[in-house]
Amino acid sequence: MQLAKVVGNVVSTQKDKNLVGCKLLIIKKIDEYGEFEKYSSSSTAVAVDSVGAGIGETVIVTQGSNARYVYGDKMAPLDMTIVGIVDEIQIV
Amino acid sequence: MQLAKVVGNVVSTQKDKNLVGCKLLIIKKIDEYGEFEKYSSSSTAVAVDSVGAGIGETVIVTQGSNARYVYGDKMAPLDMTIVGIVDEIQIV
Amino acid sequence: MQLAKVVGNVVSTQKDKNLVGCKLLIIKKIDEYGEFEKYSSSSTAVAVDSVGAGIGETVIVTQGSNARYVYGDKMAPLDMTIVGIVDEIQIV
Amino acid sequence: MQLAKVVGNVVSTQKDKNLVGCKLLIIKKIDEYGEFEKYSSSSTAVAVDSVGAGIGETVIVTQGSNARYVYGDKMAPLDMTIVGIVDEIQIV
Amino acid sequence: MQLAKVVGNVVSTQKDKNLVGCKLLIIKKIDEYGEFEKYSSSSTAVAVDSVGAGIGETVIVTQGSNARYVYGDKMAPLDMTIVGIVDEIQIV
Repeated sequence: MQLAKVVGNVVSTQKDKNLVGCKLLIIKKIDEYGEFEKYSSSSTAVAVDSVGAGIGETVIVTQGSNARYVYGDKMAPLDMTIVGIVDEIQIV
Repeated sequence: MQLAKVVGNVVSTQKDKNLVGCKLLIIKKIDEYGEFEKYSSSSTAVAVDSVGAGIGETVIVTQGSNARYVYGDKMAPLDMTIVGIVDEIQIV
Repeated sequence: MQLAKVVGNVVSTQKDKNLVGCKLLIIKKIDEYGEFEKYSSSSTAVAVDSVGAGIGETVIVTQGSNARYVYGDKMAPLDMTIVGIVDEIQIV
Repeated sequence: MQLAKVVGNVVSTQKDKNLVGCKLLIIKKIDEYGEFEKYSSSSTAVAVDSVGAGIGETVIVTQGSNARYVYGDKMAPLDMTIVGIVDEIQIV
Repeated sequence: MQLAKVVGNVVSTQKDKNLVGCKLLIIKKIDEYGEFEKYSSSSTAVAVDSVGAGIGETVIVTQGSNARYVYGDKMAPLDMTIVGIVDEIQIV
């Protein structure tokens, strides 16, 4: 999974029926110190929120086919889901 | 998912039978300010349109195996689908 | 999907049984103007041809798990397939 | 799979129900000499531990949909799992 | 798929039960001329050998969920498999 910061949200009325009702947040990938990832491919992305994340929060993001499993086995055409809100990052 | 801009389309008569009838659009990945992603791997790509997107529009793109779920469970050999047209991006 | 140019082919006699009989072509990812993608991760790759593509042609490539669907539901250990030959790229 | 070093862990109480009880470790991708991968996309990531890995250890990480198979066929929304602890890397 | 060179192997006794008995080789991605890919994300990786590849050989590597299909439909938590040994690369 990726660490990311929620920086905004997307308004989209004309979208796939399986995404209707989904909260679409804009996230930017960060490293363990909260710095935006410079060389990261697709450092900015759109994620479906599944845990009540808000703007400015640090979150955990799952990508790829398993991202849809927050909705059971629904055939949702999404590839990125926020699956956790970070309380604390402990680096040794 | 990715934010992207539709910049053109592809004409391909000799293609997989499951792609016949699909509208193939050329997209370029963008960040939250509409800037093309410099370091992004595969910043230019071909996406199947599923929501009536047009040239110049900002869209939401799903990649990977879930991209085929816009067609139910059809075994379509595609890996990128436009799943939404962006009305507005709100950045805080 | 990706735009790519076919630049060669691979000869491999010792390979997985499900790849026997597959035409393995070497492709390089390109952008909408035919330029090789500089920052692209894995800009050079090996793709299974499923539409009769030849050396020098511009093609459409599908990556990931859906790439095997050109062979129905066969459990083929491949992750990249040529699914279309490009007649024309129209950029506005 | 990727070689990586465990550099910390993440505390997240508000997370998907299928991740409750999972040990979430912070990993950084490394090359065969233990150097952090500079150009790597998402060089910092969050992985679920499935083999008892500890901080400072070199590990093997599986990404993508197969990452969930450490839990049988459970529909867990995760995309990265530590599947082995490295005893030794032998480079010729 | 990717072209890669086998540069070493990994010893890991504490690993997932489905990886026990697998030969874990270290590979580095290369381009069509055998040069290591500079900008490639995760240019160094760990692959399961399924065709008897040895150190120094040029190989074809499959990534992602289809990588497990060398073992039929076994739920193996792996994401990279060597599926062919390269005899020759023909570039035009």
